[in-house]
Amino acid sequence: MTLDDLAQRLRDFADARDWQPYHTPKNLVMALSGEVGELTALFQWLTPEESAAALADPELKANVLDELADVLLYLTRLADVLGIDLLEAANAKIDRNELRFPATGR
Amino acid sequence: MTLDDLAQRLRDFADARDWQPYHTPKNLVMALSGEVGELTALFQWLTPEESAAALADPELKANVLDELADVLLYLTRLADVLGIDLLEAANAKIDRNELRFPATGR
Amino acid sequence: MTLDDLAQRLRDFADARDWQPYHTPKNLVMALSGEVGELTALFQWLTPEESAAALADPELKANVLDELADVLLYLTRLADVLGIDLLEAANAKIDRNELRFPATGR
Amino acid sequence: MTLDDLAQRLRDFADARDWQPYHTPKNLVMALSGEVGELTALFQWLTPEESAAALADPELKANVLDELADVLLYLTRLADVLGIDLLEAANAKIDRNELRFPATGR
Repeated sequence: MTLDDLAQRLRDFADARDWQPYHTPKNLVMALSGEVGELTALFQWLTPEESAAALADPELKANVLDELADVLLYLTRLADVLGIDLLEAANAKIDRNELRFPATGR
Repeated sequence: MTLDDLAQRLRDFADARDWQPYHTPKNLVMALSGEVGELTALFQWLTPEESAAALADPELKANVLDELADVLLYLTRLADVLGIDLLEAANAKIDRNELRFPATGR
Repeated sequence: MTLDDLAQRLRDFADARDWQPYHTPKNLVMALSGEVGELTALFQWLTPEESAAALADPELKANVLDELADVLLYLTRLADVLGIDLLEAANAKIDRNELRFPATGR
Repeated sequence: MTLDDLAQRLRDFADARDWQPYHTPKNLVMALSGEVGELTALFQWLTPEESAAALADPELKANVLDELADVLLYLTRLADVLGIDLLEAANAKIDRNELRFPATGR
Protein backbone atom coordinates (compact mmCIF):
# COMPACT_ATOMS: atom_id res chain seq x y z
CA MET A 1 0.00 0.00 0.00
CA THR A 2 1.42 3.33 -1.11
CA LEU A 3 0.18 6.90 -0.98
CA ASP A 4 -0.89 6.48 -4.63
CA ASP A 5 -2.96 3.43 -3.68
CA LEU A 6 -4.56 5.45 -0.90
CA ALA A 7 -5.42 8.26 -3.33
CA GLN A 8 -7.00 5.72 -5.67
CA ARG A 9 -9.00 4.14 -2.86
CA LEU A 10 -10.31 7.57 -1.81
CA ARG A 11 -11.20 8.41 -5.41
CA ASP A 12 -13.23 5.21 -5.67
CA PHE A 13 -14.82 5.89 -2.30
CA ALA A 14 -15.94 9.38 -3.33
CA ASP A 15 -17.13 8.18 -6.76
CA ALA A 16 -19.25 5.38 -5.27
CA ARG A 17 -21.04 7.95 -3.08
CA ASP A 18 -21.30 10.78 -5.63
CA TRP A 19 -19.28 13.00 -3.31
CA GLN A 20 -17.10 14.60 -6.01
CA PRO A 21 -19.22 17.80 -6.09
CA TYR A 22 -18.39 18.38 -2.43
CA HIS A 23 -14.71 17.68 -2.89
CA THR A 24 -13.58 21.09 -4.13
CA PRO A 25 -10.13 22.11 -2.92
CA LYS A 26 -11.71 24.83 -0.78
CA ASN A 27 -14.00 22.36 0.98
CA LEU A 28 -11.25 19.78 1.40
CA VAL A 29 -8.92 22.36 2.94
CA MET A 30 -11.65 23.08 5.49
CA ALA A 31 -12.18 19.36 6.15
CA LEU A 32 -8.44 18.91 6.64
CA SER A 33 -8.39 21.88 8.99
CA GLY A 34 -11.32 20.53 10.99
CA GLU A 35 -9.57 17.19 11.48
CA VAL A 36 -6.36 18.89 12.58
CA GLY A 37 -8.52 20.77 15.08
CA GLU A 38 -9.77 17.48 16.51
CA LEU A 39 -6.21 16.18 16.71
CA THR A 40 -5.15 19.38 18.47
CA ALA A 41 -7.92 18.97 21.04
CA LEU A 42 -6.51 15.56 22.03
CA PHE A 43 -3.18 17.16 22.98
CA GLN A 44 -4.25 20.55 24.30
CA TRP A 45 -4.08 19.89 28.06
CA LEU A 46 -1.11 17.49 27.96
CA THR A 47 2.37 18.62 28.91
CA PRO A 48 4.97 18.00 26.21
CA GLU A 49 6.18 15.03 28.31
CA GLU A 50 2.68 13.60 28.60
CA SER A 51 2.21 14.07 24.86
CA ALA A 52 5.28 11.87 24.24
CA ALA A 53 3.59 9.05 26.19
CA ALA A 54 0.14 9.59 24.68
CA LEU A 55 -0.03 6.16 23.09
CA ALA A 56 0.35 4.39 26.43
CA ASP A 57 -3.32 5.23 27.10
CA PRO A 58 -5.41 2.83 24.94
CA GLU A 59 -8.37 5.19 24.56
CA LEU A 60 -6.20 8.18 23.69
CA LYS A 61 -4.17 5.98 21.33
CA ALA A 62 -7.30 4.95 19.41
CA ASN A 63 -8.37 8.59 19.13
CA VAL A 64 -4.93 9.77 17.98
CA LEU A 65 -4.77 7.02 15.34
CA ASP A 66 -8.25 7.95 14.18
CA GLU A 67 -7.47 11.66 13.84
CA LEU A 68 -4.06 11.14 12.21
CA ALA A 69 -5.79 8.86 9.72
CA ASP A 70 -8.42 11.50 8.96
CA VAL A 71 -5.73 14.14 8.44
CA LEU A 72 -3.88 11.91 5.96
CA LEU A 73 -7.13 11.01 4.19
CA TYR A 74 -8.13 14.61 3.55
CA LEU A 75 -4.58 15.66 2.71
CA THR A 76 -4.29 12.84 0.16
CA ARG A 77 -7.70 13.57 -1.30
CA LEU A 78 -6.94 17.29 -1.56
CA ALA A 79 -3.63 16.66 -3.33
CA ASP A 80 -5.31 14.19 -5.68
CA VAL A 81 -8.08 16.62 -6.61
CA LEU A 82 -5.47 19.31 -7.27
CA GLY A 83 -3.27 16.90 -9.24
CA ILE A 84 -0.29 17.31 -6.90
CA ASP A 85 2.30 14.61 -6.13
CA LEU A 86 2.60 14.97 -2.35
CA LEU A 87 5.82 12.98 -1.89
CA GLU A 88 7.55 14.88 -4.66
CA ALA A 89 6.45 18.20 -3.17
CA ALA A 90 7.60 17.12 0.29
CA ASN A 91 11.01 16.05 -0.95
CA ALA A 92 11.49 19.27 -2.88
CA LYS A 93 10.63 21.15 0.31
CA ILE A 94 13.24 19.25 2.35
CA ASP A 95 15.78 20.06 -0.36
CA ARG A 96 15.00 23.74 0.15
CA ASN A 97 15.03 23.39 3.94
CA GLU A 98 18.51 21.87 3.80
CA LEU A 99 19.77 25.09 2.23
CA ARG A 100 17.73 27.25 4.60
CA PHE A 101 18.79 25.46 7.79
CA PRO A 102 22.37 24.17 7.35
CA ALA A 103 23.12 21.24 9.65
CA THR A 104 25.22 22.05 12.70
CA GLY A 105 28.69 20.59 12.20
CA ARG A 106 29.35 17.61 14.41
CA MET B 1 10.41 7.30 -2.49
CA THR B 2 7.82 6.13 0.00
CA LEU B 3 6.28 7.62 3.12
CA ASP B 4 8.75 5.51 5.14
CA ASP B 5 11.65 7.02 3.20
CA LEU B 6 10.26 10.46 3.93
CA ALA B 7 10.01 9.68 7.65
CA GLN B 8 13.63 8.50 7.61
CA ARG B 9 14.77 11.62 5.80
CA LEU B 10 13.00 13.83 8.35
CA ARG B 11 14.53 11.83 11.21
CA ASP B 12 18.00 12.39 9.79
CA PHE B 13 17.21 16.06 9.21
CA ALA B 14 16.13 16.59 12.81
CA ASP B 15 19.07 14.58 14.18
CA ALA B 16 21.60 16.58 12.19
CA ARG B 17 20.24 19.80 13.70
CA ASP B 18 19.67 18.52 17.25
CA TRP B 19 15.97 19.33 16.88
CA GLN B 20 14.63 16.18 18.58
CA PRO B 21 14.00 18.01 21.90
CA TYR B 22 11.59 20.33 20.10
CA HIS B 23 9.83 17.52 18.30
CA THR B 24 7.44 16.44 21.03
CA PRO B 25 4.04 15.31 19.75
CA LYS B 26 2.43 18.37 21.32
CA ASN B 27 4.78 20.76 19.51
CA LEU B 28 4.47 18.88 16.21
CA VAL B 29 0.67 18.98 16.39
CA MET B 30 0.94 22.76 16.73
CA ALA B 31 3.39 22.97 13.84
CA LEU B 32 1.05 20.87 11.69
CA SER B 33 -1.84 23.10 12.67
CA GLY B 34 0.11 26.25 11.84
CA GLU B 35 0.91 24.94 8.36
CA VAL B 36 -2.72 24.00 7.74
CA GLY B 37 -3.55 27.57 8.75
CA GLU B 38 -1.21 28.89 6.05
CA LEU B 39 -2.78 26.53 3.52
CA THR B 40 -6.24 27.71 4.56
CA ALA B 41 -5.24 31.35 4.06
CA LEU B 42 -4.38 30.61 0.42
CA PHE B 43 -7.95 29.47 -0.25
CA GLN B 44 -10.00 31.71 2.05
CA TRP B 45 -11.22 34.30 -0.46
CA LEU B 46 -11.57 31.93 -3.44
CA THR B 47 -14.94 30.62 -4.50
CA PRO B 48 -15.13 26.80 -4.65
CA GLU B 49 -14.88 27.11 -8.45
CA GLU B 50 -11.80 29.33 -8.25
CA SER B 51 -10.26 26.91 -5.77
CA ALA B 52 -10.60 24.11 -8.34
CA ALA B 53 -8.49 26.17 -10.77
CA ALA B 54 -5.98 27.34 -8.17
CA LEU B 55 -2.99 25.69 -9.85
CA ALA B 56 -3.49 27.66 -13.05
CA ASP B 57 -1.92 30.64 -11.27
CA PRO B 58 1.85 29.96 -11.09
CA GLU B 59 2.43 31.95 -7.90
CA LEU B 60 -0.53 30.41 -6.10
CA LYS B 61 0.55 26.99 -7.36
CA ALA B 62 4.00 27.38 -5.85
CA ASN B 63 2.48 28.46 -2.54
CA VAL B 64 -0.04 25.60 -2.48
CA LEU B 65 2.71 23.06 -3.24
CA ASP B 66 4.84 24.57 -0.52
CA GLU B 67 2.10 24.42 2.12
CA LEU B 68 0.90 20.94 1.18
CA ALA B 69 4.51 19.78 1.47
CA ASP B 70 4.83 21.36 4.93
CA VAL B 71 1.61 19.68 6.06
CA LEU B 72 2.86 16.27 4.92
CA LEU B 73 6.28 16.87 6.50
CA TYR B 74 4.88 17.63 9.95
CA LEU B 75 2.25 14.91 9.71
CA THR B 76 4.91 12.34 8.80
CA ARG B 77 7.27 13.54 11.51
CA LEU B 78 4.48 13.48 14.11
CA ALA B 79 3.46 9.94 13.19
CA ASP B 80 7.11 8.82 13.25
CA VAL B 81 7.74 10.31 16.71
CA LEU B 82 4.59 8.61 17.99
CA GLY B 83 5.52 5.31 16.30
CA ILE B 84 2.36 5.23 14.18
CA ASP B 85 2.09 3.70 10.69
CA LEU B 86 0.11 6.40 8.86
CA LEU B 87 -0.90 4.35 5.82
CA GLU B 88 -2.11 1.48 7.98
CA ALA B 89 -4.12 3.87 10.15
CA ALA B 90 -5.60 5.54 7.05
CA ASN B 91 -6.63 2.23 5.50
CA ALA B 92 -8.20 1.04 8.72
CA LYS B 93 -10.15 4.29 8.82
CA ILE B 94 -11.47 3.84 5.27
CA ASP B 95 -12.53 0.30 6.24
CA ARG B 96 -14.58 1.82 9.08
CA ASN B 97 -15.93 4.57 6.82
CA GLU B 98 -17.17 1.96 4.32
CA LEU B 99 -19.39 0.54 7.04
CA ARG B 100 -20.43 3.98 8.27
CA PHE B 101 -21.31 5.39 4.84
CA PRO B 102 -22.62 2.56 2.62
CA ALA B 103 -22.19 3.31 -1.07
CA THR B 104 -25.31 4.39 -2.92
CA GLY B 105 -26.39 1.56 -5.19
CA ARG B 106 -25.86 2.32 -8.84
CA MET C 1 -21.85 42.60 30.05
CA THR C 2 -18.53 43.58 28.48
CA LEU C 3 -15.48 41.66 27.34
CA ASP C 4 -13.85 42.58 30.67
CA ASP C 5 -16.79 41.07 32.54
CA LEU C 6 -16.43 37.93 30.47
CA ALA C 7 -12.71 37.71 31.28
CA GLN C 8 -13.53 38.08 34.99
CA ARG C 9 -16.19 35.40 34.81
CA LEU C 10 -13.76 32.99 33.11
CA ARG C 11 -11.09 33.77 35.71
CA ASP C 12 -13.53 32.92 38.51
CA PHE C 13 -14.60 29.79 36.65
CA ALA C 14 -11.02 28.53 36.29
CA ASP C 15 -10.16 29.44 39.89
CA ALA C 16 -13.16 27.57 41.28
CA ARG C 17 -12.01 24.42 39.48
CA ASP C 18 -8.26 24.79 40.05
CA TRP C 19 -7.75 24.89 36.29
CA GLN C 20 -5.13 27.67 36.27
CA PRO C 21 -2.21 25.19 35.92
CA TYR C 22 -3.70 24.00 32.62
CA HIS C 23 -4.32 27.51 31.35
CA THR C 24 -0.86 28.28 29.99
CA PRO C 25 -0.86 30.39 26.83
CA LYS C 26 0.44 27.41 24.85
CA ASN C 27 -2.42 25.18 26.00
CA LEU C 28 -5.03 27.90 25.50
CA VAL C 29 -3.82 28.56 21.96
CA MET C 30 -4.35 24.85 21.25
CA ALA C 31 -7.81 24.92 22.85
CA LEU C 32 -8.71 27.98 20.75
CA SER C 33 -7.45 26.21 17.65
CA GLY C 34 -9.43 23.07 18.45
CA GLU C 35 -12.64 25.09 18.77
CA VAL C 36 -12.01 26.89 15.49
CA GLY C 37 -11.57 23.43 13.99
CA GLU C 38 -15.03 22.44 15.23
CA LEU C 39 -16.47 25.67 13.83
CA THR C 40 -14.77 24.99 10.50
CA ALA C 41 -16.27 21.49 10.34
CA LEU C 42 -19.77 23.00 10.54
CA PHE C 43 -19.15 25.01 7.36
CA GLN C 44 -16.90 22.69 5.35
CA TRP C 45 -19.45 21.17 2.95
CA LEU C 46 -21.64 24.29 2.61
CA THR C 47 -21.44 26.52 -0.43
CA PRO C 48 -20.73 30.17 0.39
CA GLU C 49 -24.42 30.85 -0.30
CA GLU C 50 -25.55 28.08 2.03
CA SER C 51 -23.16 29.37 4.67
CA ALA C 52 -24.89 32.76 4.54
CA ALA C 53 -28.19 31.05 5.42
CA ALA C 54 -26.70 28.72 8.04
CA LEU C 55 -28.77 30.12 10.89
CA ALA C 56 -32.03 29.22 9.18
CA ASP C 57 -31.43 25.61 10.25
CA PRO C 58 -32.19 25.41 14.00
CA GLU C 59 -29.77 22.57 14.72
CA LEU C 60 -26.93 24.14 12.75
CA LYS C 61 -27.70 27.49 14.41
CA ALA C 62 -27.34 25.99 17.87
CA ASN C 63 -24.03 24.38 16.89
CA VAL C 64 -22.68 27.58 15.32
CA LEU C 65 -23.65 29.60 18.41
CA ASP C 66 -21.99 27.00 20.61
CA GLU C 67 -18.72 26.99 18.66
CA LEU C 68 -18.55 30.79 18.26
CA ALA C 69 -19.05 31.03 22.02
CA ASP C 70 -16.22 28.55 22.66
CA VAL C 71 -13.90 30.49 20.36
CA LEU C 72 -14.62 33.75 22.20
CA LEU C 73 -14.23 32.05 25.58
CA TYR C 74 -10.75 30.68 24.82
CA LEU C 75 -9.67 33.86 23.04
CA THR C 76 -10.75 35.95 26.03
CA ARG C 77 -9.12 33.60 28.52
CA LEU C 78 -5.88 33.53 26.51
CA ALA C 79 -5.71 37.33 26.31
CA ASP C 80 -6.47 37.60 30.03
CA VAL C 81 -3.72 35.13 30.98
CA LEU C 82 -1.27 37.06 28.78
CA GLY C 83 -2.44 40.41 30.16
CA ILE C 84 -3.52 41.72 26.77
CA ASP C 85 -6.39 44.16 26.16
CA LEU C 86 -8.10 42.54 23.16
CA LEU C 87 -10.25 45.48 22.11
CA GLU C 88 -7.29 47.86 22.23
CA ALA C 89 -5.19 45.44 20.17
CA ALA C 90 -8.02 45.01 17.65
CA ASN C 91 -8.50 48.75 17.25
CA ALA C 92 -4.79 49.33 16.81
CA LYS C 93 -4.82 46.66 14.11
CA ILE C 94 -7.69 48.32 12.23
CA ASP C 95 -5.75 51.60 12.40
CA ARG C 96 -2.83 49.85 10.70
CA ASN C 97 -5.14 48.15 8.18
CA GLU C 98 -6.58 51.52 7.18
CA LEU C 99 -3.12 52.60 6.09
CA ARG C 100 -2.40 49.23 4.45
CA PHE C 101 -5.66 49.01 2.51
CA PRO C 102 -6.77 52.54 1.53
CA ALA C 103 -10.51 52.75 0.92
CA THR C 104 -11.57 52.85 -2.69
CA GLY C 105 -12.78 56.36 -3.47
CA ARG C 106 -16.53 56.56 -3.97
CA MET D 1 -15.07 50.95 22.83
CA THR D 2 -17.19 47.83 23.02
CA LEU D 3 -17.45 44.70 20.92
CA ASP D 4 -20.49 46.30 19.22
CA ASP D 5 -18.40 49.35 18.32
CA LEU D 6 -15.76 47.04 16.90
CA ALA D 7 -18.36 45.22 14.78
CA GLN D 8 -19.58 48.59 13.47
CA ARG D 9 -16.06 49.72 12.66
CA LEU D 10 -15.41 46.49 10.72
CA ARG D 11 -18.71 46.85 8.88
CA ASP D 12 -17.73 50.36 7.78
CA PHE D 13 -14.27 49.14 6.84
CA ALA D 14 -15.64 46.37 4.61
CA ASP D 15 -18.26 48.67 3.08
CA ALA D 16 -15.70 51.32 2.18
CA ARG D 17 -13.67 48.70 0.29
CA ASP D 18 -16.58 46.79 -1.28
CA TRP D 19 -15.45 43.66 0.54
CA GLN D 20 -18.92 42.42 1.53
CA PRO D 21 -19.06 39.88 -1.34
CA TYR D 22 -15.98 38.16 0.09
CA HIS D 23 -17.30 38.19 3.64
CA THR D 24 -19.48 35.09 3.49
CA PRO D 25 -19.53 33.07 6.71
CA LYS D 26 -17.63 30.26 4.98
CA ASN D 27 -14.82 32.58 3.89
CA LEU D 28 -14.67 34.33 7.25
CA VAL D 29 -14.42 31.01 9.09
CA MET D 30 -11.42 30.20 6.89
CA ALA D 31 -9.88 33.62 7.53
CA LEU D 32 -10.38 33.15 11.28
CA SER D 33 -8.80 29.72 11.04
CA GLY D 34 -5.83 31.05 9.09
CA GLU D 35 -5.16 33.70 11.74
CA VAL D 36 -5.38 31.13 14.55
CA GLY D 37 -2.82 29.13 12.57
CA GLU D 38 -0.46 32.11 12.59
CA LEU D 39 -1.01 32.54 16.34
CA THR D 40 -0.32 28.82 16.85
CA ALA D 41 2.95 29.08 14.93
CA LEU D 42 4.19 31.72 17.40
CA PHE D 43 3.81 29.28 20.30
CA GLN D 44 4.66 25.95 18.67
CA TRP D 45 8.26 25.52 19.84
CA LEU D 46 7.83 27.19 23.25
CA THR D 47 7.52 25.15 26.41
CA PRO D 48 4.38 25.93 28.43
CA GLU D 49 6.62 27.89 30.83
CA GLU D 50 8.18 29.90 28.00
CA SER D 51 4.71 30.56 26.60
CA ALA D 52 3.71 32.15 29.92
CA ALA D 53 6.59 34.62 29.54
CA ALA D 54 6.04 35.24 25.84
CA LEU D 55 5.31 38.95 26.26
CA ALA D 56 8.71 39.62 27.82
CA ASP D 57 10.18 39.42 24.31
CA PRO D 58 9.25 42.69 22.53
CA GLU D 59 9.23 41.19 19.03
CA LEU D 60 7.19 38.16 20.06
CA LYS D 61 4.87 40.46 22.03
CA ALA D 62 4.18 42.57 18.95
CA ASN D 63 3.45 39.46 16.90
CA VAL D 64 1.17 37.94 19.55
CA LEU D 65 -0.77 41.22 19.86
CA ASP D 66 -1.08 41.37 16.10
CA GLU D 67 -2.39 37.82 15.75
CA LEU D 68 -4.77 38.04 18.72
CA ALA D 69 -6.15 41.22 17.16
CA ASP D 70 -6.67 39.48 13.82
CA VAL D 71 -8.46 36.59 15.51
CA LEU D 72 -10.84 38.97 17.29
CA LEU D 73 -11.40 40.98 14.11
CA TYR D 74 -12.46 37.96 12.05
CA LEU D 75 -14.46 36.47 14.91
CA THR D 76 -16.34 39.74 15.37
CA ARG D 77 -16.92 40.17 11.66
CA LEU D 78 -18.14 36.58 11.31
CA ALA D 79 -20.59 36.95 14.19
CA ASP D 80 -21.82 40.27 12.77
CA VAL D 81 -22.42 38.82 9.31
CA LEU D 82 -24.32 35.92 10.88
CA GLY D 83 -26.28 38.28 13.16
CA ILE D 84 -25.02 36.62 16.35
CA ASP D 85 -24.47 38.41 19.67
CA LEU D 86 -21.09 37.00 20.69
CA LEU D 87 -21.15 38.07 24.34
CA GLU D 88 -24.64 36.67 24.85
CA ALA D 89 -23.60 33.36 23.23
CA ALA D 90 -20.47 33.21 25.38
CA ASN D 91 -22.38 33.85 28.59
CA ALA D 92 -24.98 31.24 27.73
CA LYS D 93 -22.14 28.79 27.12
CA ILE D 94 -20.56 29.48 30.54
CA ASP D 95 -23.99 28.93 32.10
CA ARG D 96 -24.06 25.48 30.48
CA ASN D 97 -20.44 24.78 31.45
CA GLU D 98 -21.26 25.53 35.10
CA LEU D 99 -23.74 22.67 35.05
CA ARG D 100 -21.39 20.41 33.10
CA PHE D 101 -18.34 21.01 35.28
CA PRO D 102 -19.47 21.60 38.88
CA ALA D 103 -16.92 23.59 40.89
CA THR D 104 -14.82 21.57 43.32
CA GLY D 105 -15.97 22.40 46.85
CA ARG D 106 -13.48 24.45 48.80
